[in-house]
Amino acid sequence: MTEEQLQKEMRRLLEGAHSEELEILLQELQPYDVASLFTELTDPLKEKLIAALDPIMLTDLVEELDNEQQYEVFQRLGPARTVEIMDRMDNDDLAQFLGSLSEEDSFRFLSSMKQSESAAVRQLMNYPPETAGRIMNNRYVWIPQHYTVSEAIAKIRDFAEISEAISYLYVIDSNKKLLGVVSYRDLILAMPEHKINEIMYTRVISVAVDTDQEKVADVIRNYDFLAVPVVDHQDRLVGIVTVDDIIDVVILEANEDIQKLSGSGRDIDFNTRASVAAFRRLPWLVLLLLIGLVSGSIISQFEEVLGKVVALAYFMPMIAGMTGNTGTQSLAVVVRGLINNELTAREVLHLIRRELLVGLIIGLTCGILVTLIAFIWQGSLMLGLVVGLSLILTLIIGTMAGTIIPLLLNKFKVDPAVASGPLITTLNDVLSLFIYFGIASIFLTYLL
Amino acid sequence: MTEEQLQKEMRRLLEGAHSEELEILLQELQPYDVASLFTELTDPLKEKLIAALDPIMLTDLVEELDNEQQYEVFQRLGPARTVEIMDRMDNDDLAQFLGSLSEEDSFRFLSSMKQSESAAVRQLMNYPPETAGRIMNNRYVWIPQHYTVSEAIAKIRDFAEISEAISYLYVIDSNKKLLGVVSYRDLILAMPEHKINEIMYTRVISVAVDTDQEKVADVIRNYDFLAVPVVDHQDRLVGIVTVDDIIDVVILEANEDIQKLSGSGRDIDFNTRASVAAFRRLPWLVLLLLIGLVSGSIISQFEEVLGKVVALAYFMPMIAGMTGNTGTQSLAVVVRGLINNELTAREVLHLIRRELLVGLIIGLTCGILVTLIAFIWQGSLMLGLVVGLSLILTLIIGTMAGTIIPLLLNKFKVDPAVASGPLITTLNDVLSLFIYFGIASIFLTYLL
Repeated sequence: MTEEQLQKEMRRLLEGAHSEELEILLQELQPYDVASLFTELTDPLKEKLIAALDPIMLTDLVEELDNEQQYEVFQRLGPARTVEIMDRMDNDDLAQFLGSLSEEDSFRFLSSMKQSESAAVRQLMNYPPETAGRIMNNRYVWIPQHYTVSEAIAKIRDFAEISEAISYLYVIDSNKKLLGVVSYRDLILAMPEHKINEIMYTRVISVAVDTDQEKVADVIRNYDFLAVPVVDHQDRLVGIVTVDDIIDVVILEANEDIQKLSGSGRDIDFNTRASVAAFRRLPWLVLLLLIGLVSGSIISQFEEVLGKVVALAYFMPMIAGMTGNTGTQSLAVVVRGLINNELTAREVLHLIRRELLVGLIIGLTCGILVTLIAFIWQGSLMLGLVVGLSLILTLIIGTMAGTIIPLLLNKFKVDPAVASGPLITTLNDVLSLFIYFGIASIFLTYLL
Repeated sequence: MTEEQLQKEMRRLLEGAHSEELEILLQELQPYDVASLFTELTDPLKEKLIAALDPIMLTDLVEELDNEQQYEVFQRLGPARTVEIMDRMDNDDLAQFLGSLSEEDSFRFLSSMKQSESAAVRQLMNYPPETAGRIMNNRYVWIPQHYTVSEAIAKIRDFAEISEAISYLYVIDSNKKLLGVVSYRDLILAMPEHKINEIMYTRVISVAVDTDQEKVADVIRNYDFLAVPVVDHQDRLVGIVTVDDIIDVVILEANEDIQKLSGSGRDIDFNTRASVAAFRRLPWLVLLLLIGLVSGSIISQFEEVLGKVVALAYFMPMIAGMTGNTGTQSLAVVVRGLINNELTAREVLHLIRRELLVGLIIGLTCGILVTLIAFIWQGSLMLGLVVGLSLILTLIIGTMAGTIIPLLLNKFKVDPAVASGPLITTLNDVLSLFIYFGIASIFLTYLL
C-alpha cells in the first residue's frame, strides 16, 4: 500500500469503527508509520485513534511525534493516561519533551509521575544541553562478569522490552564500573556454559557524561558502533547513546552550521511564527546594516574621486560582491573541514598557502577578464586596469579573510561558524571598497 | 593511554622490532585506532607496521583509510598481497576505492582479483552513484523460511566473519525473494526448535537498488533501523545498507548543501590542490562577475541621478548588501527545511505568507532605523525617506526571492540548493539597485 492508500484505509477504519480490522492494520505498521498517519488526521479521528491504541503502541506513537504534537496528545489523554505513557517513555525522549516546556509545565508533568521514573528523568535534565548525559538513554542491559552465556541470555529474556533496540550487553562490577562489552552476536556464537568474562571485549570505548554530543557522534562514526556506553567521573556506567540518536545529532549540527553560515539565526523552521523568525534574524541584519553604512562612509571619503570619474561607481557592486562571494566560498571550505580535522600548525600553514594560491589564480583570471570588459565597455584602458588590479587584490584579500578569520576563531576555541557568510561578505565589502577607491585615487590623474 | 602516548608506544615497538609486544597492542586496538596511528607514521615505519599485520588486520586497516592512502598501501604491498586484501575487502569499500581510480587503473586492479569477487564488485560499480545499489554491501546472512532457530544460529556460526557487524537475518524464498527479517535478539529470545517463519517479521521495509541514497538515509533515520535490505526490481534481495554508511551519507549530503549554498564548488577539502580548487570555484565566480556588471550597468543608467545627488552612492552598498543577506537567510531556512518535508500546496502558501510577513517586519524595522541614520548623517529628511522606503521594499523582495526561487526549483525537481547563496545575493544586488535608483528618480526633485 502507498502512503496515500494507507491514509484512506486508516480513515475508513476509524470512521466506521472497524476496531478489529484497525487492530490488524496497526500491528503491521511501524511506530513511524502510525505517527505519520496520525499527524494527517482530523481532530475527531485523532481522538478515535488514540482511544484504539494500547499503552505500548501509544508510547511508541508519542515517542515519534515532535514536542508540540506530544503536548497535544497529552492534553487529549487526560492526566491519568498521560502519567502511564510518561512512565513508559524512554528517558531521553521524555527529557527532551520536558525540556521544551516552561519550567512550570515541566514541574507539573514531573510531579505527577512515579517517583523512581521522575528521579531518573530529572537527573538527565541536569546535564548540560548537547552533552552525552543529555542524549543518553537507559535502554541497556548490564550483567556481572561471573555470569555464564545462558544466564546472560536469561537476563535478556527478562528485559525483552528494554533490550529491543540494542545490540550489546554491558558487563559491570559491584560498583557499576564498566568492565567489558558483549554483543548479541558474541552470545549467539558462544556456548551456553561459557563465562561472560571469557568472551567479553575488555578494551571498551566509552564517553563521559559531559562529553560534547559532536564528540560522541565522532566516536560512533569512527568506530562504526551501534551504541556507546556513557560513564560518570567514577567510571560507572550511567547510560548509552545509540546510533539512531547520533544520526539526529549529526543532522542537527549540520543545520546549525548552515544557519550560522547564512546568519539566519537559530531554530527557524517551517513552523516558526513570523514574528519569532523575524526577531531571531534581526540582530544579524542590524549589525550588517551598520557595517554596510561603514562602506557608505568610505565612499563618502572618496566623494571627490567619484565625482570626477562617475564610471568608477559602475564597478563598485561587482567588486564588493565578488570579494564577498570568494570569501564565503573559502569560509565554507574551512568551516566544514574543521569539523573532521584537528589541524596542526603545519596543516594550517599549508591551508593558508593553498587558499592564497587559490586567491591568486582566481584573482588573476577574473582581474584580466574584467580589465578587458571595462576597456571595451567604457573605452578607457586605464579605467580597465584600475578595476582589474583592484579586483585581483580584493579577491586575494577576500579569500584570505574567509580562510584566516574562521581559523583564528577555531584557534581561540570559538565556533568558526559564527563567522557567518553575511559577516564575511559585509567585512569584505568594506575592505574591497577601500582598496578600490584607494587604487583609483592613486591613478586619478591618468583616469581623467 | 592517550592518543599521543599510543603513538609514542607504537613508534617504540616498531623501531625496536618488539614484535610480540606489538601484536598484543594491535589486538587491543580498534581498526580506526590502527588507521589513525598508521597515517601519522614515517614511511619506513609504515612499511614495518604493514609487514607486522596479518591479512585480516591489514584488510581492516585498509578499509579505514581514505582512497589516496589505500592506493599508497597497495603500492607498498605489491601485487600478490594486494589481491589477497582486495578479495577480503567489503564490496562497497572496494567499489568506492576503484571508483576513485582512473578507468585504466581500476581495470588493472579488478583483473588481478578472483573472478567471483571482481564480478560482484563490477556489478556494484554499475549502479548509478548516490543510489542504494552503490552504497550497499554483501555482509548479510540469509536463510530459507523452513529453518529452525537452531539451524539459523548454526548458519550464523558458519558465517561468523561476515555476520560481525550486522544485527538481522534475512529470510528468502527459492527465488531469493525477500520474505521476512529476524533480528539476533529475536533468535536469542526464541526457543531453538521454533521455526523461523513463526518468529520472523513479515512486513519488511526495503529499498530498491536505484533508490537515492538520501531516501535510504530517511528510511533508516525514520524507522531507527540498523540496516535496511536492498532489493532489485524482481524483489530479490541483493544487498543491505547499514547505519554506519548512512551516517557518512548524511554528513556528505549536508556538506554538499553547504558547498552549494556557499557556491564553493563541489569536492573541495583540505587536501585539494590549489589549481583544482580554483578551477572548481571559478565557474560560479565568473557568472557572478557578469551579473555584478549588470548591477553596474543599472547604475550607469541612473548616472544623471547619481551625478546630481552623490550621497545616494553612500547607501548603495548597504542596500545591496542587506537585500542579499536577507535573501540568503530565507534561502537557508527553505533549503534545509525541504530536506525533511514534502510540502503540500497549502504548506507552500503558508511558508510564503510567513516569509512575506518576516520580510515586512524586518523591512519596517531596518527601514525606519536607516531613515533616522540617513537623516542625522546627511541632514536631509527626504534622502532618509528615499533610502528607508527603498530598504523596506528591497528587504521584502529579497526575502521573497530567497523563499520562492528554491521552492520553484524544488517544484521542478531541481535541487533547491543550486540556488546558491552567492547567486541569490547577486540577483538581489541587481534588483535592489534597480528599486533604489527607481525610487530616487521619482523623488529626484525633492532631493535637490
